[in-house]
Amino acid sequence: MSNFRRDPLKGTWVITENQRIRQPREFLIDRQQITMRLCPFCPGQESKTPVEVFALRPDNTAANKPGWQVRVVPNKFPLLRIEGELNPQATGLYQSMRGIGAHEVIIETPDHQRSLAQLDLAETTSVLQAYRARLLDLRQDSRFRYLQVFKNHGIEAGAPLPHAHSQLMAVPITPPVIRNELNSCREHFRSTGNCLICDLLAQEIADGKRVVFNDGRFLVLAPYASCFPFELRLFPLQHNHDFALQNDRELTDCARALQDMLRRLYRLLQDPPYNFILHTSPPIQPHVGKPDYWETLARDYHWHIELVPRLSRIAGFEWGSGFFINPLPPESAAHFLRDTDPNLSF
Amino acid sequence: MSNFRRDPLKGTWVITENQRIRQPREFLIDRQQITMRLCPFCPGQESKTPVEVFALRPDNTAANKPGWQVRVVPNKFPLLRIEGELNPQATGLYQSMRGIGAHEVIIETPDHQRSLAQLDLAETTSVLQAYRARLLDLRQDSRFRYLQVFKNHGIEAGAPLPHAHSQLMAVPITPPVIRNELNSCREHFRSTGNCLICDLLAQEIADGKRVVFNDGRFLVLAPYASCFPFELRLFPLQHNHDFALQNDRELTDCARALQDMLRRLYRLLQDPPYNFILHTSPPIQPHVGKPDYWETLARDYHWHIELVPRLSRIAGFEWGSGFFINPLPPESAAHFLRDTDPNLSF
Repeated sequence: MSNFRRDPLKGTWVITENQRIRQPREFLIDRQQITMRLCPFCPGQESKTPVEVFALRPDNTAANKPGWQVRVVPNKFPLLRIEGELNPQATGLYQSMRGIGAHEVIIETPDHQRSLAQLDLAETTSVLQAYRARLLDLRQDSRFRYLQVFKNHGIEAGAPLPHAHSQLMAVPITPPVIRNELNSCREHFRSTGNCLICDLLAQEIADGKRVVFNDGRFLVLAPYASCFPFELRLFPLQHNHDFALQNDRELTDCARALQDMLRRLYRLLQDPPYNFILHTSPPIQPHVGKPDYWETLARDYHWHIELVPRLSRIAGFEWGSGFFINPLPPESAAHFLRDTDPNLSF
Repeated sequence: MSNFRRDPLKGTWVITENQRIRQPREFLIDRQQITMRLCPFCPGQESKTPVEVFALRPDNTAANKPGWQVRVVPNKFPLLRIEGELNPQATGLYQSMRGIGAHEVIIETPDHQRSLAQLDLAETTSVLQAYRARLLDLRQDSRFRYLQVFKNHGIEAGAPLPHAHSQLMAVPITPPVIRNELNSCREHFRSTGNCLICDLLAQEIADGKRVVFNDGRFLVLAPYASCFPFELRLFPLQHNHDFALQNDRELTDCARALQDMLRRLYRLLQDPPYNFILHTSPPIQPHVGKPDYWETLARDYHWHIELVPRLSRIAGFEWGSGFFINPLPPESAAHFLRDTDPNLSF
């Protein structure tokens, strides 16, 4: 199985595959597109995946048979495994722990031909309902410090399989990116009594230059310090720390904003490769860390979705410094996207 | 000109181009290879670049004319500009400063056809001498907190121009990656009295599993928590915090290890795209920050070169979490590379 390893110089954690040693030539394949004969995510191929852990399907259809609208299955080649204990170890300067976690695939539609941007509002809402259902289920396992929902779209964004899908990974360490955000929000809350993201949204609405979509319920903007061209963030305007606590109406509102965002990108940039990541509150675990840590989390964090089109690559400067170089001001990205018609005709 | 912008949620700094607004279609070009008619880095094309700031050339040749072995010029399209003051500004939650810095190109050879791995030992040493000369010159400008030398090789690693070159960027903020390393080293030094990297090298030599090259002067290893397959780090075995303080013999020793590392990768992975980054001490600036900060820097930091082949891509999980996924254990990477003959026949 895999393990988590910590770099003593950088402090980064890496999940290292230890089970199957690949040959060097296998890494050259990554430079090429993968083609498959039979798609394991298509209806009729349900037996090609592990058994489903969730599905939205009519009552008269059987599990692991066609008829589903959204289907969630464990990853057939999971990076992290659900059975076992972490067994943290130290060898000299090095720390590691076993690769315990969960790795699931959310198949967003039975239709092999349509991408998430091409789904209708009800179908998009179903995808978000599947995220919520899996988040609510997996948070019952107290080994998991964070549940990360993300989507890779297109080969350049790390999705070798073309059939529309998202992923969920449950991890036993709070991810550095999330810890960093939680700390920024906590610090702002302590000094102002406000949610950092609520304050940031108020400033963005007053300014207006970076706003792409605002229907009074959800807002999409090009972040002030966007790392990449056409990077976008989607926020609920009403404060909420936890995506999994949104009701069906709120998920429909979220789906409307997500659809608008994806369709504008699709039209403006010719269906670009992208990643999006749900940033939401970690499962509240009063037994972990300082007891007062969890008390104000519901007031000081604010969930959102971050989307990064993969039009450019990270090169030596970015990797070596941690600085990013963005050749397009986010004000221009927002301007181009506002001018784009989000209606697709398929 | 560009500016530096800080994300209030993540704390990341981004360099945002503000001068020329590119059209959305220009970002689609990045998905394709760029071809040029005349290479601006070839001998005879010296007038196509800004005037040289350094060159290794025979005494009987004139500046900005052919005859050079290594040539350093300001980047024709610099991301950061050398003239002016930083003018830090805050607008509500947002901080920015002007894009002040330097951005230079080190042309490694007059030969358009040869890559750095294909240069001989004297030629490779000349490239390192050029790095040293520029580091020593630019550190006289006290606006620059860090001088970053890096190389992008191959289109997938962010080098659209094929002629062998490295780059140097001088930045007015200590890069987060470097600050992080300095902090880890400082902490280890305070608790043990030793250099973290010296201790790490001793542990790696005793273990041996991840060592690729060790001639008693320089050592190349696959890091314990490698983020990518075939990631490598090159270290001087004798403690030294500052690359720019290495003498000619030490640079020749470094060139020998670098050449060995590049040639093993070239042979094993068919000339893979890669980035390498020099990690070295920031210029010592006793007038900046706490006065005692700089006192032990020479004892607690240890310069090195980090190399990352670009065989895989960063996808949603990595971007959203800050965790990395490495499908190849570094012990296997080191094994494959040790078994590779570093001799190239050109």
